[in-house]
Amino acid sequence: MNFIIEQSVFHNALKKVNRAVSKSNTLPILSGLLLKGAENKNLQLVSTDLEIGIELEIGADINQTGNIVLPANELSNIIRELPAEPIHIKVNQDNYTAEIQTSNSHFKLNGFNPEEFPSLPEVEKNYNLKINSDQLKNIIDRVKFSCDKNNSQPGLTGALLSIKENEIIMVATNTYRMAYCKKDIDHEIGEEIRNIIPVNSLNELSNLLGDYEDEEVNVIIDNSHIKFYFGDLILTSRLIEGKFPNYQQVMPNDFNNLIRIEKDSLLKAVKRASLIAKLDSGVINLKFTNDKLIIESVNSEKGHAHEEVNIEMDGGEQNINIDVNYLIDVLKIISEEEVKLELIGPLNPLTVKEADNEDFIYLIMPVRPGS
Amino acid sequence: MNFIIEQSVFHNALKKVNRAVSKSNTLPILSGLLLKGAENKNLQLVSTDLEIGIELEIGADINQTGNIVLPANELSNIIRELPAEPIHIKVNQDNYTAEIQTSNSHFKLNGFNPEEFPSLPEVEKNYNLKINSDQLKNIIDRVKFSCDKNNSQPGLTGALLSIKENEIIMVATNTYRMAYCKKDIDHEIGEEIRNIIPVNSLNELSNLLGDYEDEEVNVIIDNSHIKFYFGDLILTSRLIEGKFPNYQQVMPNDFNNLIRIEKDSLLKAVKRASLIAKLDSGVINLKFTNDKLIIESVNSEKGHAHEEVNIEMDGGEQNINIDVNYLIDVLKIISEEEVKLELIGPLNPLTVKEADNEDFIYLIMPVRPGS
Repeated sequence: MNFIIEQSVFHNALKKVNRAVSKSNTLPILSGLLLKGAENKNLQLVSTDLEIGIELEIGADINQTGNIVLPANELSNIIRELPAEPIHIKVNQDNYTAEIQTSNSHFKLNGFNPEEFPSLPEVEKNYNLKINSDQLKNIIDRVKFSCDKNNSQPGLTGALLSIKENEIIMVATNTYRMAYCKKDIDHEIGEEIRNIIPVNSLNELSNLLGDYEDEEVNVIIDNSHIKFYFGDLILTSRLIEGKFPNYQQVMPNDFNNLIRIEKDSLLKAVKRASLIAKLDSGVINLKFTNDKLIIESVNSEKGHAHEEVNIEMDGGEQNINIDVNYLIDVLKIISEEEVKLELIGPLNPLTVKEADNEDFIYLIMPVRPGS
Repeated sequence: MNFIIEQSVFHNALKKVNRAVSKSNTLPILSGLLLKGAENKNLQLVSTDLEIGIELEIGADINQTGNIVLPANELSNIIRELPAEPIHIKVNQDNYTAEIQTSNSHFKLNGFNPEEFPSLPEVEKNYNLKINSDQLKNIIDRVKFSCDKNNSQPGLTGALLSIKENEIIMVATNTYRMAYCKKDIDHEIGEEIRNIIPVNSLNELSNLLGDYEDEEVNVIIDNSHIKFYFGDLILTSRLIEGKFPNYQQVMPNDFNNLIRIEKDSLLKAVKRASLIAKLDSGVINLKFTNDKLIIESVNSEKGHAHEEVNIEMDGGEQNINIDVNYLIDVLKIISEEEVKLELIGPLNPLTVKEADNEDFIYLIMPVRPGS
């Protein structure tokens, strides 16, 4: 194998495929990237940590075909530091080494046998969905932060993706808070398709989608895996086998109070109150009066915080204790200027919505006084 | 005590004094800042970790005098998050608490008895020096990275400050490399004054001096402490009791080769070679030929690097092994476009200088082949 590639093209491609390179050391070959140069084709880069896999095609001048696995870290560091010149790469297929050459630099890297690199799972076209990349990133970003990576229930370590009729729904929860986002799609589906996608896959997918604005994403799902095709890239993720809670059951149908608040004022006040709350259990008290929200947080040793924010409210006075981080998390990802809060009472969840968007719903379970 | 202060003024001041707040938990009061409000005076902020002390005076409306110690971390976080408004601070001298208030926020912080805050050492005017702040920062920055914070010889955990005749010299070494910088000063001194300043103090002093461009710094030194007065700030540091190596002895008087190299090309090539060298012992080989420097680095498991850089050289071919980090460190702080290297042989130190500045000298001891 023998090819010439532009430094900037190679460097950008490596940043993308590195996202699926294994961080653990259990299988040394997974610290590498598979480079495939076939006749009349682009250069193909493949990485996997056995949960996620990334395949990327990039333009290169392939003079001699072949495959090799090179250590991802060392290769990326070298390519990053090389000058913006064409890079010549010459692979010795017998001893799995590669020479990397520019006018003044000459590196030799020891690699691995490409035959030993695990192949990414094929996905049988059980179900096929087309969605805009910005729309997909938007759904993922509104939900993924509510997953609980370390939860002992496998179902909660990812987000539920439900496709039915002509909508796509994503939900994530750790049972103390829940994020739900819905989008309309073009095509209609009969039976509901439900799958749980690991939060790591959602994080990497969201990061990658940021580089592919307004493109079509083709999604293929079978019983064990999901593949996302966009631009020159394919991301494969395993699906989580496990139960996802019945989220419809916890969704309040009604409320006693509807509150409108300027998002920035609320976020700033809550962040300040959190400075005291975080010294302790992280709990703040929200007291809704006629035209003011009073936020209180007490730490017996260090001190106490009292914040006031102007609100518009329908309904009588209310009082609720919540974990301050759950409120900060959602206010950070809301882009609208105004948020809506819905309340039933101190023992029912607090609902957070965007002022003009019913497709996003976020619930925070209350902390019982004295718990 | 009771005062009003602008949020931005207080926030900026806290960033400065926080540099001397203790990071260890051994003495809880050292996690605090002493606030002193005297009649017809500015507000004074004091911090110390017993090695460094910072005193800062800032404008505030003091309505009632008094002192308090408040937790530095919590106070700074709160002030940072408050809106750009005047902040009212009301101290209860009986129970050492402070109320911090703006239009919509009200905090109460528990503090400490100001009587228990250690007072900063007085320095008897044993010796007094005036120097420009930029000049002082320049000397410190060219030398401090060569100190060895964790060395078992106390003298090497700081930099030597030597003042004699009409020059000021700073030197730091870990015995494997040495940085030396000299500046002329206005006044003449008879006897040499030698002191060792801890590297932490130099780091914080350099950071602080960045905010005080082209100001006069007044330096007072006695046998155990040094004080730097500049702008509204006083930094006090303890001095290190210990021996500093005889640096003049290791300074080469002569050389066999003088080499001129473009600094950026050398830094880039050395950084790339370091990617392989760092996988191992960090050693690179420098081979100086007529018009080229060849940099080689080998790691038997991972691979090998070969870099070429154009040079101008007087003298015959040379070969030397050095620790790559020692060369990267110095090339990063040199601002001139060209560097000069001076060589005697493979067992003598490599000298690095700026092309047009004889006041800065940097030595790298060679690594013996096979060691």
